[in-house]
Amino acid sequence: MQKSQKIAVVGSGLVGSLLAIYLKKAGHTVHVFDRSPDIRKINFSGRSINLVMSNRGWLALKNIGLDDEIRKIGIPVEKRAIHMADGSINFQNYGKEGEAIFSLSRGILNRKMIDLAEEAGVIFFFEHKIWDVTLSTATLHSGETERGEWEELKYDKVFGSDGAFSRVRHRMQRQSMFNYSQEFIHVGYKELNIPANPDGSHKLDINALHIWPRGEFMLMALPNLDGSFTCTLFMPHEGNNSFENLKDKETLEAFFAEHFPDTKEVIPDLVEDFFENPTSFLVTMKCFPWTYKDKVALIGDACHAIVPFYGHGMNAGFEDITILSEMMSKYGDDWETVFKEYENSRKPNADAIADLSYQNFMEMSSKTADEKFLLQKKIEKRFSDKYPEKWIPLYSRVTFSNRPYAEALAIGNFQNNIMEQILKLDQIEQKWDSEEVENKIIALLQAKS
Amino acid sequence: MQKSQKIAVVGSGLVGSLLAIYLKKAGHTVHVFDRSPDIRKINFSGRSINLVMSNRGWLALKNIGLDDEIRKIGIPVEKRAIHMADGSINFQNYGKEGEAIFSLSRGILNRKMIDLAEEAGVIFFFEHKIWDVTLSTATLHSGETERGEWEELKYDKVFGSDGAFSRVRHRMQRQSMFNYSQEFIHVGYKELNIPANPDGSHKLDINALHIWPRGEFMLMALPNLDGSFTCTLFMPHEGNNSFENLKDKETLEAFFAEHFPDTKEVIPDLVEDFFENPTSFLVTMKCFPWTYKDKVALIGDACHAIVPFYGHGMNAGFEDITILSEMMSKYGDDWETVFKEYENSRKPNADAIADLSYQNFMEMSSKTADEKFLLQKKIEKRFSDKYPEKWIPLYSRVTFSNRPYAEALAIGNFQNNIMEQILKLDQIEQKWDSEEVENKIIALLQAKS
Repeated sequence: MQKSQKIAVVGSGLVGSLLAIYLKKAGHTVHVFDRSPDIRKINFSGRSINLVMSNRGWLALKNIGLDDEIRKIGIPVEKRAIHMADGSINFQNYGKEGEAIFSLSRGILNRKMIDLAEEAGVIFFFEHKIWDVTLSTATLHSGETERGEWEELKYDKVFGSDGAFSRVRHRMQRQSMFNYSQEFIHVGYKELNIPANPDGSHKLDINALHIWPRGEFMLMALPNLDGSFTCTLFMPHEGNNSFENLKDKETLEAFFAEHFPDTKEVIPDLVEDFFENPTSFLVTMKCFPWTYKDKVALIGDACHAIVPFYGHGMNAGFEDITILSEMMSKYGDDWETVFKEYENSRKPNADAIADLSYQNFMEMSSKTADEKFLLQKKIEKRFSDKYPEKWIPLYSRVTFSNRPYAEALAIGNFQNNIMEQILKLDQIEQKWDSEEVENKIIALLQAKS
Repeated sequence: MQKSQKIAVVGSGLVGSLLAIYLKKAGHTVHVFDRSPDIRKINFSGRSINLVMSNRGWLALKNIGLDDEIRKIGIPVEKRAIHMADGSINFQNYGKEGEAIFSLSRGILNRKMIDLAEEAGVIFFFEHKIWDVTLSTATLHSGETERGEWEELKYDKVFGSDGAFSRVRHRMQRQSMFNYSQEFIHVGYKELNIPANPDGSHKLDINALHIWPRGEFMLMALPNLDGSFTCTLFMPHEGNNSFENLKDKETLEAFFAEHFPDTKEVIPDLVEDFFENPTSFLVTMKCFPWTYKDKVALIGDACHAIVPFYGHGMNAGFEDITILSEMMSKYGDDWETVFKEYENSRKPNADAIADLSYQNFMEMSSKTADEKFLLQKKIEKRFSDKYPEKWIPLYSRVTFSNRPYAEALAIGNFQNNIMEQILKLDQIEQKWDSEEVENKIIALLQAKS
């Protein structure tokens, strides 16, 4: 057991509140600060992609005995439902029989997590704005406005779980030897809504993530407990098919009629939603180091914000907590080592999931129309179905496993390499499902191992 | 002629003061703000690598009639003097007969530029700290301290020439879709000094840049007008041969005796200099966009800080001014287009010189001991000497040309590609200077063009 510390957590989001529970259960005094009002007392506005919990997220909850509680507010999603341009629907299972990801409303989950943290004895300070941190003394600077009066709040440790625009990181960023990058993608997103039927049932298959892939842009829908679906439209900010170009009711309705005709009935408030909801931006943010001596540590989006195309933002943040907790058990009161080992263990994996997520975005937006790419997917699927022990698909390695992301990425690259060679075979289009191709893959797999 | 504007330039460094002259001569009212005291009234402390002016820098000065004035305070440097570990010296000309770069003391040059700007009618405000900028109105926020009283200064345009840690960029960085990266390298630097002889003459060859390359670390010296040389020691911050490890007089002297024995006599104050002067950090900083509507523009290090291993930090900044000035002539009062075309034209070239500089650092620190690499250099030199019109070396393209950096990088990569194929030839070590190799290079050059 560690010596009890007075710890501040900046940010009461999903990662901040779960971290607070872990720290409290480890015997520390934990105060959580958030600039926003208590999310339990306001109408949660949405404006965030619904999220999916997979193995890594569940593990972090299970280790602290909260998984059953949270499972009650999730909906298992075992397949993609791909709405084709011709109106037909293709179903693809995510994994093997019984494997599913879980759709969760961010607002409902966050409220639940804060309740659980309070039950555990964590103290929350909402509408407390943290503007700056003195790293060497773990002191927070809080006040009404950035240029007004500030109060100093001294702690033993500070955790920055304050998201992609973290103030805690902002201070660390001003140090020498602090590496940092933020890169926005040209695609943004907007939230739309598929309401429940009058009887409370879902308008679309409840156990599916619905996708309308259209090359440069796509629509997605994830089920909520109340019978509704949270929809997200991903589309370039500028250019031909873009948010910029959908200026009025007429263009918008014509655009949806052309590309998503089967949504007309299920998105009744399209025009209102579209023009009322903000268009949001997507960014990949990387940095290093994540910690300052034994005083300050960043966690979750504050040190590794990723684009949402693998559905792993929260899962990666929760896995940070799993690893941090392991290091706390291992190194006890030597917090400098706890922090060093935590950042060294997590950094390559955070980079890997960032790269995997960006890769998935590139695949979705530019490769879905590429015939070679579709052929590759077909060959992989056939081989993996026949030899599940020889070829675990990348998606399963990332989503239904707790092995490091970096390992998944490395094996994914190795598999891709093999596929590149396979696709170069003469007349591969004709013989893709032949024994010859199968044997070639096996040979290439063995050549390496 | 453009309509006269009230323009603020933040930063009175080399780029800021030259930009101010350009803007003033274009008919605008120009105020330059700097947080530091007037550099002409203080003892300039050094703590900056001496700089070299090459074609791009000279062109920016020439276009405004200042090149002759500045040439008087520069020293032509036509060759590298490479001090080998065995005490011998190799000389390498930088270019062809008559081609030279110019060594300039940053302090002396900056004072001169500020004098010239004042003569032109630019008004300087020293010890004025700019903490923030309101982008939409080109308003500066100035005050004694960051958290104290601020005054608002309203302009028509604001230029941020406030260096790698630019406050102006800092504000732009908080916008959505602003891409940014800062990456420190593991090598830092420290300034040392080779004083003049008692008679005012130089202790080393005056028309040379002196280098003591030692793999992971190196020493460099550039001549000053007063007979001294400004020396710079580049070395990793941590590790085996590192700043961290040179802790006391004894280790330092032993280190220099082992690696730079021929400097014992010429650096008399080694110990004092070393322990008094700070160890500085080296960073590559990239960002985009560089401008905000027709209101704000970044220039020089504020938007593209690079490592100094090509000697092009100032040259790239001065070339920004050349291009900006071209756009001002071309687009007149349409400042939004002036700014857009300026940033679009400069961004790929700023990225290219950043990459070239980093590449040169990698070459210097890791490849100088690589035999294949040295052989490549020998083959290139031989070929380029014999066919100067077929093979302009990369260094010349960057330094003795005003063609875009991006073009130099692209051709450099193409040449490297050819060399890779040449190095793969059987028994290349024996036949590197044969006609066969020569013809092979010619064939590869033609295959492309």
